[in-house]
Amino acid sequence: MSLSMYQASVPVFVRGLDNLAVLLDQAEEFAAVRQIHPSVLIEARLFPDMFPLARQVQLASDAARRAVARLAGIKAPVFEDIEVTFADLHERIARTREFLDEIGAWRVDGSESREFAVKVGGQETAFTGLSYLLSFALPNFFFHVTTAYDILRHNGVPVGKADYLGRFDEHFALAIAS
Amino acid sequence: MSLSMYQASVPVFVRGLDNLAVLLDQAEEFAAVRQIHPSVLIEARLFPDMFPLARQVQLASDAARRAVARLAGIKAPVFEDIEVTFADLHERIARTREFLDEIGAWRVDGSESREFAVKVGGQETAFTGLSYLLSFALPNFFFHVTTAYDILRHNGVPVGKADYLGRFDEHFALAIAS
Repeated sequence: MSLSMYQASVPVFVRGLDNLAVLLDQAEEFAAVRQIHPSVLIEARLFPDMFPLARQVQLASDAARRAVARLAGIKAPVFEDIEVTFADLHERIARTREFLDEIGAWRVDGSESREFAVKVGGQETAFTGLSYLLSFALPNFFFHVTTAYDILRHNGVPVGKADYLGRFDEHFALAIAS
Repeated sequence: MSLSMYQASVPVFVRGLDNLAVLLDQAEEFAAVRQIHPSVLIEARLFPDMFPLARQVQLASDAARRAVARLAGIKAPVFEDIEVTFADLHERIARTREFLDEIGAWRVDGSESREFAVKVGGQETAFTGLSYLLSFALPNFFFHVTTAYDILRHNGVPVGKADYLGRFDEHFALAIAS
């Protein structure tokens, strides 16, 4: 009785990205209603040397894409960081999701004991698939989705924890059951 | 080839709590050096109706404790929300860790297919252990640890992503190997 590396990675990232897209929708609507230029939110940050909203979305995309590619033992597609509008950010999320949707479970399953090294903070770090997923990939992904949320919340966008967590319908249960 | 429910929960929460304790140490040191009253950081928030730092730490503790208890099919210990100093918050984290350390892997393993209902946002929501861990418990836990980080960062505390992720030494690999 257990769960598979695929179950613990791909559907989790997909769900997080879908929730992030909903947060961006709410930000866009907020900007439209208040007549705030979208770039004010897209370039917003919590501290001068912290990454702005757009970069948090790019990094959430990178975190998901690179983690799954690493576990699957394939090369992650390279995305240029050129997003400046909400439409661009949605497109980035959609392309990330497309990549994830195409990864067969068989590619990721069994990766828990695979050994590899990843540069973390400039330092080559030895992982197994299991330690990589649980101590790096998942915390790193949720960091960027949550920080995107916190940037929006700090700017008065009326998002709530329920938006971050997403809807609890049958969809996710089916996604991880497969 | 797979991972166990225990591996994907208890050591992940323990690691996140340990990293949170390091973030609090840095906040305390920052306050001391700058002669800022600790309560200024402990009561800091990103928006007036968002929870302050202390509550984020309490909620990270609750998220970890309740998730593991739910998966283990036992009652989570109830902690009163009375923390007002950094020492109090460290104590809260330590008590949470103590509870987690005492949970045998056998209690959590096999919970992936267990069915139960949890109130999420006032709504009774049906989960399996697997969907609960991956769509609610882990995202919820990382939300509160990251928001604690974001509150500190927003207030100029010189924490970095490496502090949030924690050290990549043998410790975690051993924790999940068992």
